[in-house]
Amino acid sequence: MRESELLSHIYARSQDLSARFPYILAGPGHDCASIKTPASISLLKVDQLVEHRHFTPATPLDLIARKAVARAVSDIAASGGTPLAALAAATLPPNYPHANELFDRLSHWAIHFNCPLVGGDIATTPSPREGAGGGASSSAQLSPLTLSISIIGTPHPSRGHVLRSTALPGDSLYVTGSLGGSLNPDGSGGGRHLTFDPRLPESRWLCEAMGSKLHAMMDISDGLGRDAGRLAAASQVRIRINAAAIPLSPNITDWKRAASDGEDYELLFTTPARLPAACAETGTPITRIGSVESGSGCIIADGSRELDASEMGWDHGTS
Amino acid sequence: MRESELLSHIYARSQDLSARFPYILAGPGHDCASIKTPASISLLKVDQLVEHRHFTPATPLDLIARKAVARAVSDIAASGGTPLAALAAATLPPNYPHANELFDRLSHWAIHFNCPLVGGDIATTPSPREGAGGGASSSAQLSPLTLSISIIGTPHPSRGHVLRSTALPGDSLYVTGSLGGSLNPDGSGGGRHLTFDPRLPESRWLCEAMGSKLHAMMDISDGLGRDAGRLAAASQVRIRINAAAIPLSPNITDWKRAASDGEDYELLFTTPARLPAACAETGTPITRIGSVESGSGCIIADGSRELDASEMGWDHGTS
Repeated sequence: MRESELLSHIYARSQDLSARFPYILAGPGHDCASIKTPASISLLKVDQLVEHRHFTPATPLDLIARKAVARAVSDIAASGGTPLAALAAATLPPNYPHANELFDRLSHWAIHFNCPLVGGDIATTPSPREGAGGGASSSAQLSPLTLSISIIGTPHPSRGHVLRSTALPGDSLYVTGSLGGSLNPDGSGGGRHLTFDPRLPESRWLCEAMGSKLHAMMDISDGLGRDAGRLAAASQVRIRINAAAIPLSPNITDWKRAASDGEDYELLFTTPARLPAACAETGTPITRIGSVESGSGCIIADGSRELDASEMGWDHGTS
Repeated sequence: MRESELLSHIYARSQDLSARFPYILAGPGHDCASIKTPASISLLKVDQLVEHRHFTPATPLDLIARKAVARAVSDIAASGGTPLAALAAATLPPNYPHANELFDRLSHWAIHFNCPLVGGDIATTPSPREGAGGGASSSAQLSPLTLSISIIGTPHPSRGHVLRSTALPGDSLYVTGSLGGSLNPDGSGGGRHLTFDPRLPESRWLCEAMGSKLHAMMDISDGLGRDAGRLAAASQVRIRINAAAIPLSPNITDWKRAASDGEDYELLFTTPARLPAACAETGTPITRIGSVESGSGCIIADGSRELDASEMGWDHGTS
């Protein structure tokens, strides 16, 4: 397919965006998109999805597109915000035959999550040279399909942008939903990393119910242990997690899995308030799993043992 | 390098961002960045830079970073806007040893162009499997370094967002600077595609000098012929370019090169006004190269011959 044909497809499918989302002033087809934002403060996030890293060649295109958008939307939720619009950049392997369908599924999920695609960029990786070897399947492996989704959102109108650096000693540490097994290698757990719903309504409810008492928040993408360690470091506090309190996903039994598997996309937050056991709006469980103290670091207490939580979970090595 | 070490490097280098750019409320290190925008309308753009496509393995990292940022900034300029902040997403080949330096150079150029990096994402492509063959150099070729830069900008306060779809019959067609040879394969022309300055001051001057008479604008990235064809299609007008009037870069002599080489990053715009021969603010030449008529399509008149301009220039095939 020629780029011009794909662009024609995208422009045709995007013609009614401004009618459906009146704050979109200019969508695909210009050098820049433009939107009218409801507040003077904007939230900004970019996230990537890389073949063989975040999905496999067997993952249906619809679920790849869903995950690419939902991951970035989850960060908007973790900031107490609401998504407004998205930009999508795709690097396609040579001879990629599904570009139109990929756009259609990205566009579908972006609209589903209320951040329509207002712009994007498509690039194709070069074809392998003679002598590079390996044939079609290995070159596909080595030129992975890569999606980069940028989202602009608006913070909660009264609570504002919720940061991860504002936890205070005396806070309780809470988590939504249950943890672990999202990527279960045996295929159990329903592939939740592909089908999760970003916690937008839960985040909004927390902002409204707690206001300024919602001290700090983030989403769990690299595992509770590592991410709680990041929250502790950003807030310059010490976090103590009670292993027995961690809500385990139905398909796992070991709290260490729940602390380290990652890709949960649940909200992790701190507040001095006492919360009900579920979000009043959605019924999503809310569990107190620990506390915030003076000091530094993050430990998980398992009976009398104390483990360094920040070494658990995913550290995506770059070499 | 571990991801956590790279993140520490990025956070340390980003600590003073809010002091230097007070409208940046939260930079790297949170689930989302946040900025205070000067107007309720925001411009949004994403652009990618792919190794072997937009630069070679021999291109210095500093120029890769410069081009990645400058390309997206050029689209903000083409919309009459001013950049505010950027997000950077990078897909790195396996065992990439220059991640810290890559961030530093991206950060440098983002600040240089007044759109500091407020967030980003780093992913590593998987290592080649046994049997994929080809060794280090070919796997590097097949897992290209890819950068995706998203920019949020603000439109000109009085002229607003300049679109490419608002040219009118009777307008003149103008271009800034000179065209062609930016990517000259013999290495002449100074590699302008790596070192160009986005036409921000020229764009601002045009908005201020012409106001609503600046009808339509875009930047030339895929060649004058193809891009003028896009402007004509978006505005539902016919564009006629006078080949003899096209300003040629010093290193080329054939107007067809100027119409098709691409990567000029000059402004192409239409207005019914008569303009001086240079931007009063920068001295950049401004040349009337054609006119806008009723109808459709884009032709280049070379003496008595008329060529279809929209078939010139780059069409990045996706298969």
